[in-house]
Amino acid sequence: MSKITPEAFNDLTDRELPIAANCGFRAEEIGDGAARVRAPFSAYLTRPGGTISGPVMMALTDFGMYAALMGAIGPVELAVTTNLNINFLRLPAPVDVIAHCSVIKLGRRLAVIEVTLYSEGDSAPIAHATGTYSIPPETGR
Amino acid sequence: MSKITPEAFNDLTDRELPIAANCGFRAEEIGDGAARVRAPFSAYLTRPGGTISGPVMMALTDFGMYAALMGAIGPVELAVTTNLNINFLRLPAPVDVIAHCSVIKLGRRLAVIEVTLYSEGDSAPIAHATGTYSIPPETGR
Amino acid sequence: MSKITPEAFNDLTDRELPIAANCGFRAEEIGDGAARVRAPFSAYLTRPGGTISGPVMMALTDFGMYAALMGAIGPVELAVTTNLNINFLRLPAPVDVIAHCSVIKLGRRLAVIEVTLYSEGDSAPIAHATGTYSIPPETGR
Amino acid sequence: MSKITPEAFNDLTDRELPIAANCGFRAEEIGDGAARVRAPFSAYLTRPGGTISGPVMMALTDFGMYAALMGAIGPVELAVTTNLNINFLRLPAPVDVIAHCSVIKLGRRLAVIEVTLYSEGDSAPIAHATGTYSIPPETGR
Repeated sequence: MSKITPEAFNDLTDRELPIAANCGFRAEEIGDGAARVRAPFSAYLTRPGGTISGPVMMALTDFGMYAALMGAIGPVELAVTTNLNINFLRLPAPVDVIAHCSVIKLGRRLAVIEVTLYSEGDSAPIAHATGTYSIPPETGR
Repeated sequence: MSKITPEAFNDLTDRELPIAANCGFRAEEIGDGAARVRAPFSAYLTRPGGTISGPVMMALTDFGMYAALMGAIGPVELAVTTNLNINFLRLPAPVDVIAHCSVIKLGRRLAVIEVTLYSEGDSAPIAHATGTYSIPPETGR
Repeated sequence: MSKITPEAFNDLTDRELPIAANCGFRAEEIGDGAARVRAPFSAYLTRPGGTISGPVMMALTDFGMYAALMGAIGPVELAVTTNLNINFLRLPAPVDVIAHCSVIKLGRRLAVIEVTLYSEGDSAPIAHATGTYSIPPETGR
Repeated sequence: MSKITPEAFNDLTDRELPIAANCGFRAEEIGDGAARVRAPFSAYLTRPGGTISGPVMMALTDFGMYAALMGAIGPVELAVTTNLNINFLRLPAPVDVIAHCSVIKLGRRLAVIEVTLYSEGDSAPIAHATGTYSIPPETGR
């Protein structure tokens, strides 16, 4: 069972993650070590060529990793990314971007999370990422 | 000699990269395959703990790679990131972030760029990244 | 349908990939853009602690990517790795390592391949990797 | 000052890292968080095209990271790689490969190390890598 609801995570976003809130990112589902998050398409998020920019996809990836991790360990806000690697696979379509995020290793101090990004309505991934979060010791886990 | 001036790159930013413009990113120096870019500190760019967020540092990294690449090949706006890998090394101080960007391989179709990020006034890097850009064939290079 | 058989790929290994052959790597299954490959456990492949070493897992990963790519495009020996990123998730058990490899993007010039590594008989992955191969233009694809 | 000599590290290699020993890898210089290591050219280390293979360069990278880390913290054999990212930049020449390795962040539990690889006698790098090592808690650091 998830240790945080999408509502609580989105509230935290509005309070603590101004760029993510400004981009309109939302968590739609959070499970125990899994999350589905969304970036709503708008011209504001694009780059030359009219597609969602790489930095927006990276920000959504990190946002989804944070959600999936909190789904596993609760609202540990001071967990921080230590590494992120992303491959951009296809140009996104001019629609919302959906990221599916999954914790593939949960240690006491480190978690590794995999993320696949899609243009809504298309099953061919537009990007794939993996990242590591460092979990602060004071969380009593 | 650089194939684009910081002024021209910053104009392009204002026209074509709304998120980067919104975050206040600026190119300060661009050489032939090198760039120094800046994110001005503001609460808007922070995350829990009050430090500049990971996604902002990733966005600045990608912004600086784009500048360094254009310094080498000119304003090829449709060059796109295909891979980015970043390691976060130290928590940033509550000051501007400066990224030093350098093309370490320039091929006909791919460029690899290295980026080191610093808190202004501190010589210990806060993050280190490498990335690959794909250069569109129609550039006549 | 795969464009190369495991037998043909293993023959190529014996002729052209001396380190992989020396480590005992074998392709067991190759499909169209997918492969399962194996490193047989032996003390020769270990590191301090008695587990299969990181470099062996990286070599097996690259070996499996090459097999999966050839499954998709045929025996294009001059395809080369341009990027590889690997996360080590758990210490391997003292048994064979199996890598499941899947092409997640096949372009004309670049392919991106995902690999998950397991200790035989255990469903928890011991490592996860992504990599990019560059496909030479002379392949007439 | 380095906490291990090249001689001690090469002895450890012969005892504990059979693949690295088999490939002929040697540490030539080790400093406090830095190392220069070498792979001697031989047909045994090549791949189709006659160049040193990617897995050999990855193995040399990891070998050099281990040496640089031990230069900083001493012979902590159970330190393990948790992430490695490598970009292959140019085809190596048929000569020895030299890797220059440098610890860019040394924490209590994690170290990040940067590696640049060269064909001997050529200043254009053939590959660039970054990696993270996990340092076991029992080292009393």
